[in-house]
Amino acid sequence: MSDINSFGIIGGDIRQLYCARSIYEDGLDITVSGFGRSSDMMGMKETPADAVIERVDAIILPLPVSKDGERLNSPFAEEPLPLSEIINSIGKDKPVFAGMYGSADPAMFKGMNISCYSSREEFAAANAVPTAEGAIGTAINEFDGTLNGSRILVMGYGRIGRILSMMLRGMGAEVSVSVRRLKDAEMVRAAGMKPEFTDHPEGSYDIIFNTVPVLVLDARTLARCASDALIIDLASLPGGIDDNAAARMGIRVIHALSMPGKTAPRTAGIIIKNTIYNMINEMYKNNL
Amino acid sequence: MSDINSFGIIGGDIRQLYCARSIYEDGLDITVSGFGRSSDMMGMKETPADAVIERVDAIILPLPVSKDGERLNSPFAEEPLPLSEIINSIGKDKPVFAGMYGSADPAMFKGMNISCYSSREEFAAANAVPTAEGAIGTAINEFDGTLNGSRILVMGYGRIGRILSMMLRGMGAEVSVSVRRLKDAEMVRAAGMKPEFTDHPEGSYDIIFNTVPVLVLDARTLARCASDALIIDLASLPGGIDDNAAARMGIRVIHALSMPGKTAPRTAGIIIKNTIYNMINEMYKNNL
Amino acid sequence: MSDINSFGIIGGDIRQLYCARSIYEDGLDITVSGFGRSSDMMGMKETPADAVIERVDAIILPLPVSKDGERLNSPFAEEPLPLSEIINSIGKDKPVFAGMYGSADPAMFKGMNISCYSSREEFAAANAVPTAEGAIGTAINEFDGTLNGSRILVMGYGRIGRILSMMLRGMGAEVSVSVRRLKDAEMVRAAGMKPEFTDHPEGSYDIIFNTVPVLVLDARTLARCASDALIIDLASLPGGIDDNAAARMGIRVIHALSMPGKTAPRTAGIIIKNTIYNMINEMYKNNL
Amino acid sequence: MSDINSFGIIGGDIRQLYCARSIYEDGLDITVSGFGRSSDMMGMKETPADAVIERVDAIILPLPVSKDGERLNSPFAEEPLPLSEIINSIGKDKPVFAGMYGSADPAMFKGMNISCYSSREEFAAANAVPTAEGAIGTAINEFDGTLNGSRILVMGYGRIGRILSMMLRGMGAEVSVSVRRLKDAEMVRAAGMKPEFTDHPEGSYDIIFNTVPVLVLDARTLARCASDALIIDLASLPGGIDDNAAARMGIRVIHALSMPGKTAPRTAGIIIKNTIYNMINEMYKNNL
Repeated sequence: MSDINSFGIIGGDIRQLYCARSIYEDGLDITVSGFGRSSDMMGMKETPADAVIERVDAIILPLPVSKDGERLNSPFAEEPLPLSEIINSIGKDKPVFAGMYGSADPAMFKGMNISCYSSREEFAAANAVPTAEGAIGTAINEFDGTLNGSRILVMGYGRIGRILSMMLRGMGAEVSVSVRRLKDAEMVRAAGMKPEFTDHPEGSYDIIFNTVPVLVLDARTLARCASDALIIDLASLPGGIDDNAAARMGIRVIHALSMPGKTAPRTAGIIIKNTIYNMINEMYKNNL
Repeated sequence: MSDINSFGIIGGDIRQLYCARSIYEDGLDITVSGFGRSSDMMGMKETPADAVIERVDAIILPLPVSKDGERLNSPFAEEPLPLSEIINSIGKDKPVFAGMYGSADPAMFKGMNISCYSSREEFAAANAVPTAEGAIGTAINEFDGTLNGSRILVMGYGRIGRILSMMLRGMGAEVSVSVRRLKDAEMVRAAGMKPEFTDHPEGSYDIIFNTVPVLVLDARTLARCASDALIIDLASLPGGIDDNAAARMGIRVIHALSMPGKTAPRTAGIIIKNTIYNMINEMYKNNL
Repeated sequence: MSDINSFGIIGGDIRQLYCARSIYEDGLDITVSGFGRSSDMMGMKETPADAVIERVDAIILPLPVSKDGERLNSPFAEEPLPLSEIINSIGKDKPVFAGMYGSADPAMFKGMNISCYSSREEFAAANAVPTAEGAIGTAINEFDGTLNGSRILVMGYGRIGRILSMMLRGMGAEVSVSVRRLKDAEMVRAAGMKPEFTDHPEGSYDIIFNTVPVLVLDARTLARCASDALIIDLASLPGGIDDNAAARMGIRVIHALSMPGKTAPRTAGIIIKNTIYNMINEMYKNNL
Repeated sequence: MSDINSFGIIGGDIRQLYCARSIYEDGLDITVSGFGRSSDMMGMKETPADAVIERVDAIILPLPVSKDGERLNSPFAEEPLPLSEIINSIGKDKPVFAGMYGSADPAMFKGMNISCYSSREEFAAANAVPTAEGAIGTAINEFDGTLNGSRILVMGYGRIGRILSMMLRGMGAEVSVSVRRLKDAEMVRAAGMKPEFTDHPEGSYDIIFNTVPVLVLDARTLARCASDALIIDLASLPGGIDDNAAARMGIRVIHALSMPGKTAPRTAGIIIKNTIYNMINEMYKNNL
């Protein structure tokens, strides 16, 4: 894998520690900074950020890079890590793999050798799995019946919708999936499920999972389709549900966000690692 | 359904309330006693036990009937319900459907028209579903990776083992099932999973679910197969794991018991109702 | 459905007869021409083409429209149906729904009110189901073992690849799917299958299904991955296999083409009907 | 595996040749007799029966042993193999593994060291897989629609019923299973399918598979449930359908028998081998 043999992970939550451990288990050199207050360092040793940058071939920054625009996103750091200092230390040449910038000003990274792992398609596809499992775990915990045998609607048939609906059917639920396009309706039917159309679902459901990041369940649709269903919204805020209308109708809505880090941080860390490996492989191929 | 048109539910936990509500939704008459301290009576009204017994065609007692041998098992009752008084009030003729007796002396029920719903096979089969889902919910919550893609061993291929392994495969896990008999090994293989033999599983696993109510994971087997696996034991206490040996080896064991009432009380209540309906149907047929 | 209440089907194979019957069962008026030599008219009566055109609101032409450029594709017609005569009779105004033109000169249809059902995406998606089932039927007939438990590679993860691989996994096969993109590899993994990359599959397989319409199994790849595998090629001719290389190596290749009409003509006919209904619904909406 | 290192296979159809080849691939010594007229000896050489018996540690006889009571069942033999001669040559001591006797008089085998592989439970369980696949292949060939999306009833939930219904659901069919016992109804429901009761199925179906070897579809039941369904009967003759009633009603019934040998002879041969290995392992353990 090219000439990158050592990684430094600076900042981030438990996913980055799992990422670090997985890199270590691959036999590569790994150093971490910003985890001094973590209760479990997974066998790694806290190292000052400067020493990390000095020592390694490539840096991995967290997802998101910053939540306030000033400090690196590093909840386990003993002292705040000022973003500008870290960036200065890294300099223009050292390869950096970062999550999305969050509140950080993109201009800060200008001229750096930086690329984003969290915007890659295989990153999103891989994270759809822990998202779907987290949604299922939430439903098992919050719904007073079993998923098996229940009438469940999954809104949206993108990555998460496809994986979630497959898992629910695999657990014996009666699954419908709402789509926008006729061809997707055929794919849903082929997978042994009932297609609905997102703008006017017609069935009656016990649980509705939404994966569509625009308002799909407005007051009118809620009134018709959800009476006493439990709604689990997986779409980023503000989500796809008219929460006020739902509250007025007494419909329970759970916003289940950031599932991968909560439900499967080890997997989430390995996904970060795999994505970075893919990026390095591609750079390496292009340089041949 | 014969000449039983009204039911009285005396004592029990939230499952009995769901059972009551479901009977009500079937259009039958239902009266409950022993739920005065419940935060949600599901639209029903607390009635004194004597009045309930007076009024209804058949009585439903909880599962178990008693936990201390003296009082009816009724965690939501405002005052303790002495078992002997309840039994005296019911008398010898009125049909009673009860869970297992628990700590109650079977002699107390002598001569009564009583039958047990929780010992019926379809009751156990139906409860295997919420048990399996509760096990999956526990694994999603406690395991730091995803079930999808993980190597999972289900020990035992009875009701729970069959349903649990099917659901796990349906979620995309790599499932092995341990069995005792060659013919069960063939059924496991046919279902797209890998058979193991319960007395000497050979694979390496991320998660092990045990459903077998005898010691299957002793120190020797643990040493070989489980290194850093998460073990979820669904078998009634003392369960199927040598907990001391596991603790010495640093293996994490979770005892996940009484899943249906915890994870899906509504389903658990409906299962009680359905089983009682089956019993009444059979009595009725036999009387024709 | 707009103002089209009667259909005329002229020419085509048994799929068009099933399409006709299904339209009839929907309560619409249907007349057919070109089936006089069919052994089973499914309760319909042969009518001369001119009379059909005269009588109906819309015409349905076969798939393909012509195989020789001169006559309508109508294997069951008692006399050849000259394409130019049919086209002249139809005229410029009457709505026509046709399959792809085949050998017919597109210029012939200039100025007509004609649209193509077989180029629509939901048509292709729906036909992926009978194609996948036909492939499975072929494998069951031709392979000397069971699919269950066999190592199977599906090349390509488009419509057919997705449905076929899901069905094979549902039958208990050990399924790998070859893809080109990393994100598809993640979707394959999420579905409980093993991803391969189409340009260098690494596993060893009992059966290989190809769905990719370019040369994917060249001599070099065949040599490595297929030794004594059975290969079933679903891609349109010339297909995705180097047949000469396969023959030299003694590898058996079956070209399984036009599956929907062969394996499930009723479904194929209903798909034609549904697609035409969709087209009419869209015209109607656009006219509102 | 004990002290049996060489096998002789005398008589039988292509399954026995596959069994022989699989034994050979395990590195054991194998000699065959009775296959001189086979077009493909799979690399083996025909040897006279006497020489085989002389040479090997154990003999494998076909399934069934005889179809006429006089000759060994050996459709590929150049000359008939008289059963009594074979038995005399084998003698009392040499271990023999045989299929069911068929028309052979059991008394002929008295005092021999013979045991039956085809009556073992794991043999029946393993053969349920090729039987189910053969049934699916038959349905794909004979039904004019797709299994995907069709309403299918599987009668009986024994080995074949369980595997067949799982495969059909895995292909996206809408599956019901008829059972006799309430607990099996719960297991069917848990598997995401609809339970029916065998004595009065209520649904309407496109395809009915029967696995129950007693008359389950009599005239009355046929009249109600099958109108224009395709019926595939997997139960041994006379099967579970009133064929005369079905004929009168114009219902199509296909008897699909002896599926493993027809649809997956290689698998069927390997099942024979595996069963014999199991028997030898058990003998060996018992002798320790």
